[in-house]
Amino acid sequence: MPVIDKSKVPVKTGSIYPQPYASQMAGRSSLRLGDAGGLTQFGANEVILQPGALSSLRHWHHREDEFVMVTQGECVLVQDEGETTMRPGDCAAFPAGYPNGHHFINKTDAEARFLVIGSRMNPEKATYSDVDLEVELKDGKATFTHKNGTPYQGDRT
Amino acid sequence: MPVIDKSKVPVKTGSIYPQPYASQMAGRSSLRLGDAGGLTQFGANEVILQPGALSSLRHWHHREDEFVMVTQGECVLVQDEGETTMRPGDCAAFPAGYPNGHHFINKTDAEARFLVIGSRMNPEKATYSDVDLEVELKDGKATFTHKNGTPYQGDRT
Repeated sequence: MPVIDKSKVPVKTGSIYPQPYASQMAGRSSLRLGDAGGLTQFGANEVILQPGALSSLRHWHHREDEFVMVTQGECVLVQDEGETTMRPGDCAAFPAGYPNGHHFINKTDAEARFLVIGSRMNPEKATYSDVDLEVELKDGKATFTHKNGTPYQGDRT
Repeated sequence: MPVIDKSKVPVKTGSIYPQPYASQMAGRSSLRLGDAGGLTQFGANEVILQPGALSSLRHWHHREDEFVMVTQGECVLVQDEGETTMRPGDCAAFPAGYPNGHHFINKTDAEARFLVIGSRMNPEKATYSDVDLEVELKDGKATFTHKNGTPYQGDRT
């Protein structure tokens, strides 16, 4: 049955980020709607932001297109140019390779949600605009590095 | 600027269907939001249904995943199993090759809208469940045939 029963979709919490960034994602969760519906060719996730929560570190994707539509409440989009408040029905597009990092912040005292669509490239790379961090995503594995390519965590003492 | 100004996105009307099916799509239009935002890897369109309008002939895609979220009003999803009324936030997924045709009907007296995401396969094929029609989509060209492969329009007299 193609209709997705959201009440049965697991609420995904936590973050793949290393510390201290993972802790900064408190209050963010998501529903993997496309996965729940058996889709494989792109991701379709509803992101849920509690008051004060961030959607991610500010980032841009090297190979993947990304599309967002706000579905509930107010989300503040942050980019190089500054902040834009977005409301239900408002949408934004982030073409692959566009080096202008973005993320969303819920600055209200009510829950906010947006739908995010992303193509699924393998491998993929993302750069985080405001911190010295990048990630390579390959075969389901995320490898975080500094921007000079050295491992973010690992064999350094 | 990634935020999409919907008021500046052209409203696409009309249908690629041959007659008599094109005329059956009266009252349907769409905003090509992803295209407007410079995306190429998937389509992200907001479909606008006036009262009584259909989103398409009931169809299924052979190679493309499709995802829908209702964004305004009420849309009735029609599939082999029957009808399901969907409201804002409700979503459905149609995996590639799932041979259960679907379309949406606005049975209310107010405008209804949904966001539809589709991957972009080239070539692609779609089968229309309720009529003797299929389409091959290749390099931007649509070729309609009967289900036995003979041209729907063309060299027959």
